[in-house]
This record gives sequence, structure tokens and C-alpha cells, in this order.
Amino acid sequence: MHPAQPDDPCANPWTRLSRRQVYENPWIKVYHDEVLQPDGQPGVYGIVHYRNYAVGVVAVDEQDRVLLVGQYRYSLDRYSWEIPEGGAVIGEEEPLACAQRELAEETGYAARDWRELLRSHLSNSVTNELGICFLATGLTPGEARPDGTERLQMRRVPFEEAYQLMVAGEITDSLTMLGLQRAALLRLGVV
Amino acid sequence: MHPAQPDDPCANPWTRLSRRQVYENPWIKVYHDEVLQPDGQPGVYGIVHYRNYAVGVVAVDEQDRVLLVGQYRYSLDRYSWEIPEGGAVIGEEEPLACAQRELAEETGYAARDWRELLRSHLSNSVTNELGICFLATGLTPGEARPDGTERLQMRRVPFEEAYQLMVAGEITDSLTMLGLQRAALLRLGVV
Repeated sequence: MHPAQPDDPCANPWTRLSRRQVYENPWIKVYHDEVLQPDGQPGVYGIVHYRNYAVGVVAVDEQDRVLLVGQYRYSLDRYSWEIPEGGAVIGEEEPLACAQRELAEETGYAARDWRELLRSHLSNSVTNELGICFLATGLTPGEARPDGTERLQMRRVPFEEAYQLMVAGEITDSLTMLGLQRAALLRLGVV
Repeated sequence: MHPAQPDDPCANPWTRLSRRQVYENPWIKVYHDEVLQPDGQPGVYGIVHYRNYAVGVVAVDEQDRVLLVGQYRYSLDRYSWEIPEGGAVIGEEEPLACAQRELAEETGYAARDWRELLRSHLSNSVTNELGICFLATGLTPGEARPDGTERLQMRRVPFEEAYQLMVAGEITDSLTMLGLQRAALLRLGVV
């Protein structure tokens, strides 16, 4: 019974013995599983399932400035400058539609050209969170309308300066870093 | 009372009314907070605190090959190729010592030269997880010794091929992607 296919090195070596939901709110569910580990020994695994994809937008204007939004991150108890980001309810909203909505809500900008840059599992030791990052260009400004959980500032930062803020450790959000790095590589011709 | 400093746009606009621990295991604690949101309305916030830093190693050998380890990720229910990674108990193990230990455990390799590449908050909408990634060079092989929760494969993949696996979506782990992208930028002379 364990493992199911001993000859396949990519087969699932974990056996779930039981699952108990220990927490739920509108954004996450937390499960406590009793398992048999890959070595066959009993163990436990706590996992966090997200209701949303994390969606981010590297938006670059005609003056080669990146739109950054600042907000106080409750989970870190610190202020954080990031690309515009939001959550797309899985199965209900397309990531691109979410990216367009969040860019408009958080910065007021609309974009003519959209390109998906990358997808990444952000914290796969414990969560199933999938981040999706877009590049948006051809920007036109408008009026921001953040929701009640957000108190935002917005800056337009030259791309090179934004990259250096990241290198200096002043930008630490993973999806922002992934997007800025990939955009920097694209600008250097790396595809 | 709310907010404490209305004139500082970077001040914490959240007020915590109560906190209840709803789950704990050896790796995470989950809290349910009742809060006042930035707009002053009541709300809830569930946050996940990690006991460990996530530590990763981009290890490149003399033939310009990156060491990748494959494992089945229980939280994603899928197989994942990643750089060697592990957890450094916060306050107990230095991230560099953890990186050196994990590289040895998962691949058998030791490295002469170490450089910290980046730090990133991996999933800051819900968690406080901090990932730290190192570049390791001057490698010498040895014998791997994974622990009981790990069934690992190891590959030595030319750097350019590893980068393309990421672009193709076959490598999705955030810390791996952050490390490969930063290493690629360094190789292009971007510091």
C-alpha cells in the first residue's frame, strides 16, 4: 500500500491517513493531516489552502517608470512597496481580468498591452498558493479606488531604480521580485 | 485611537482587537485576529507564522551545472524540481549554516564560496515566511543523506537549461525561481 508505485521515483511517497479542517476564513482553509512520511513513519502535515490566486502586475509607463504601491502588510507588521497585486478567486475570475481590475483599483491606470510573465508556487512547503505575474504596457492614467482593507500610496519609479530598491532589500515581496527580475531579463533579451 | 499617527502614510492603519491561536504544529502557528481595517470597519485576519526561515541554495559546479533536487510536494500534490532548500529555525540556526547543511544533506555537495543572493517575503498576504537564497560555487561532491520526510532525486542541469525549465513552467517554486533569475542577472553583469 505504501508507496503505490515503488518503481516510479516521482510517485507520491506520502500516505494521508486522515484530514481535519482546523480553520477557515474567506481567504484560507487550514488542514491538519495525519500521514505516513516517505520513509513510512507516522507524521503530521499542516497545510494552508488559498481561495485565491495571487495576481501581480509589472506596469511600465512610456517614461519607463514602474508603478509601485505601498501598503502596510498586517502579516509582516511592516510597510511594503510592491507591484499592484490582488486575489483572483479560483474558478471565478480569470487571472488577467483580476490583474486589470487590480491595476485600475490600486493605481487608476489602464493598460493596452498585457503579457503573462510567470507563474510560481509561492510557499510550497505549507501552502498551495499560486502567484501569477503580468507585464502591462501602453498605460493611460485614471482615478484609483482602493477597497476598505487597503490604504495605499502610489509611486512611479524608474525601472532601474525599482530594480535597485529590490537589490538593496527595500522591496521584499516575492511576486514583485519575481516580476521585476523577469522583466529585467526580458529587457536584456533573455526570453 | 485609530490610526495612531494619521499624518504618516506609512503608519500601521490596522488595529488588532483580539488574537486567538487556532492551530499549531512544529512548523507553523495560525492566528485568527479580530481587527479594525484601514477604513475603520471591523474585519478578521488569519495569519500563518512560520517557525523557520526558508533557505535555498543555487549551487553551480565547475561545468556550469545547477544542482536540482526533485521531491513530491505534499502541499501541492505534485512533483517539483527545485534548488536544495530547507528550514532554519529562527533564532537557533544561521541561514548560511542551514544552507550548507541542506546542500550536504540533499546533494552530498560541499561548497567553497558562498554569497547571499536575496531575501524575500514569500507570501505576505497571509504569512510572515522569509526566504533567503544563497549562491554556492567551488563545489566538491560527497554522499547525500536526506531525512525521513524526504525522498529526493538529484540532477545536475546546465544553467541555461535550468533557466529554460523555469521559463517553460516546469520549475515553479518561488525561491528556486528567485534564485535562478538573480543568478542569471548576475551572469549578465547586473548587480
